[in-house]
Amino acid sequence: MVESLADIAPDFARLVIEFPFGDIYSRPGLDLRSREIAVVAALTAMGNAAPQLKVHIQGALNVGVTRTEIVETIMQMAVYAGFPAALNGLTAAREVFAHAGVATPAAGRAAATVAATVTATA
Amino acid sequence: MVESLADIAPDFARLVIEFPFGDIYSRPGLDLRSREIAVVAALTAMGNAAPQLKVHIQGALNVGVTRTEIVETIMQMAVYAGFPAALNGLTAAREVFAHAGVATPAAGRAAATVAATVTATA
Amino acid sequence: MVESLADIAPDFARLVIEFPFGDIYSRPGLDLRSREIAVVAALTAMGNAAPQLKVHIQGALNVGVTRTEIVETIMQMAVYAGFPAALNGLTAAREVFAHAGVATPAAGRAAATVAATVTATA
Amino acid sequence: MVESLADIAPDFARLVIEFPFGDIYSRPGLDLRSREIAVVAALTAMGNAAPQLKVHIQGALNVGVTRTEIVETIMQMAVYAGFPAALNGLTAAREVFAHAGVATPAAGRAAATVAATVTATA
Amino acid sequence: MVESLADIAPDFARLVIEFPFGDIYSRPGLDLRSREIAVVAALTAMGNAAPQLKVHIQGALNVGVTRTEIVETIMQMAVYAGFPAALNGLTAAREVFAHAGVATPAAGRAAATVAATVTATA
Amino acid sequence: MVESLADIAPDFARLVIEFPFGDIYSRPGLDLRSREIAVVAALTAMGNAAPQLKVHIQGALNVGVTRTEIVETIMQMAVYAGFPAALNGLTAAREVFAHAGVATPAAGRAAATVAATVTATA
Repeated sequence: MVESLADIAPDFARLVIEFPFGDIYSRPGLDLRSREIAVVAALTAMGNAAPQLKVHIQGALNVGVTRTEIVETIMQMAVYAGFPAALNGLTAAREVFAHAGVATPAAGRAAATVAATVTATA
Repeated sequence: MVESLADIAPDFARLVIEFPFGDIYSRPGLDLRSREIAVVAALTAMGNAAPQLKVHIQGALNVGVTRTEIVETIMQMAVYAGFPAALNGLTAAREVFAHAGVATPAAGRAAATVAATVTATA
Repeated sequence: MVESLADIAPDFARLVIEFPFGDIYSRPGLDLRSREIAVVAALTAMGNAAPQLKVHIQGALNVGVTRTEIVETIMQMAVYAGFPAALNGLTAAREVFAHAGVATPAAGRAAATVAATVTATA
Repeated sequence: MVESLADIAPDFARLVIEFPFGDIYSRPGLDLRSREIAVVAALTAMGNAAPQLKVHIQGALNVGVTRTEIVETIMQMAVYAGFPAALNGLTAAREVFAHAGVATPAAGRAAATVAATVTATA
Repeated sequence: MVESLADIAPDFARLVIEFPFGDIYSRPGLDLRSREIAVVAALTAMGNAAPQLKVHIQGALNVGVTRTEIVETIMQMAVYAGFPAALNGLTAAREVFAHAGVATPAAGRAAATVAATVTATA
Repeated sequence: MVESLADIAPDFARLVIEFPFGDIYSRPGLDLRSREIAVVAALTAMGNAAPQLKVHIQGALNVGVTRTEIVETIMQMAVYAGFPAALNGLTAAREVFAHAGVATPAAGRAAATVAATVTATA
């Protein structure tokens, strides 16, 4: 997404990195896992930024947030932003999980474990 | 807030407990600390539920989220929902912290420690 | 509210009447009761127009929507816009009902009946 | 939509039925027609839940709200949430009407069955 | 978009012209360039009306707002509505610019004609 | 507002200056008048940041946007975000204008002229 903006707004491609990551994410007061959970929650609740929500669901996976934790974070938004917001957030998660799911055997085993956990907690 | 609605919507006073707490918060897939961070993030980003945001900032404190972590969660929303949303979230946090801060000497000492931490990490 | 804008935006005071009432409310395809229920639902869900929500809760009462129906409409928004939106909508309703409730003995009796109904259906 | 979430969030598939339908729609204080008009109004005004808006436009048809009443409900949202929200709501309605529009006796019977089911589950 | 609604909401097709253009855009107190910048800013910030945002990015071009000015207006929304809103606004701008970018003399003349028409109807 | 946050989020007080003003407002591609009109439009449309809207209505006055232009910008938002958003924006403008109006005799004369203009264009 950032690259695709390089032609019409090259400075924004720089700012979109500098401010969030240089000035916010790098701050020591909150761990990266919590930061990604916070973003997944907020973008699900706002409900008008599907592309960015998917990026951050992947980002959450990357820093070790489990699929179950992501699903729970999104489900919880039904309480605060309504069921449609949560449903659309879960749809985004399903798409990200589907792409992430074919990654490696290790990831595959992890995914299977998570899937079992989701089923077990269901 | 819930009590005050007992006269016009007694069932809602029950539902507002049952669904969020009975059906969502009690689920094992996500720890309470992460759940409160998620709610503080979402309500800050939505920007139209100040009373509930304050309730959950207090709720976050109650389950062990530090003031620094709350402030960082809210600040981070500037990236996703804009500076006004983050500023209004910080105003809410300041009000909650002010009330929580005068509770007991022990709480006072804890608050002083946190305040120092906030300053140090700033 | 409209009068108070006459000094800085006199034309808007006219438009705010003409378009909604001249062009929309007067249309025959939907009865006034349903129109007011629709507005109470929408403003509750949007959650950023408390003054207008109160005006329309009163407007709903004026065209014969009962207090119970108003409360149910607002409660239902918990499903679509989250509990905070519904709670803040109920707070608005309580304020309007409190003012409307002291009007006349007849209104008082009606209010008592409605209050009993609300309790009974709870 | 609910079925498609069964793999990643099976509990949510249950909650999304239980809370809205078990706890809210089944309440006696507001008729189903008014409930569906309220939801169509709210989702049009919020403007960030197109899939759910379509589901409820169909739901409104199923409980006897006429196409004209649905169009009027959505048009009215131009006053409260702006013309873009109303335009996008009308686009959703047109899509639902187009599918519903191949009205065969079979479809008529199916609609009656669904309406009966909704009433039964309400 | 307006034409496509003629079948289900013919009156709305009229209102969507009359109120915005007859009652608002034609007012002398603000120039058309500023009006289009205001709309591009608002629709970017709201983030739930992509089709209308594109229409107004084109409308801004038609009344002489430069591509740079449009990009700056949208980028600025990152401050007030968050980076996702600004990113999605830039994506919309890129699509509009791509279509407008096959600038032939014919397109130039067409644009001039439209601009004249907008001015005339303003 | 920024000063009041210095105790709980001192870094944010710095960021809230650096990013908007250092990285965005200082860019040459859009004049300050247009930037302030864009912000007033966006914050009016979003409807959930009244304190910041007032700051920017004053900011718009400071860079030479006239009261009439501010009122027109806000009124126009009725088309895109609904009448409640525009009404609440006008209420904010009236408060800012009232404070700005008692500043100095020179300002008083200017205000009187503008008020006359508003009335004349109304």
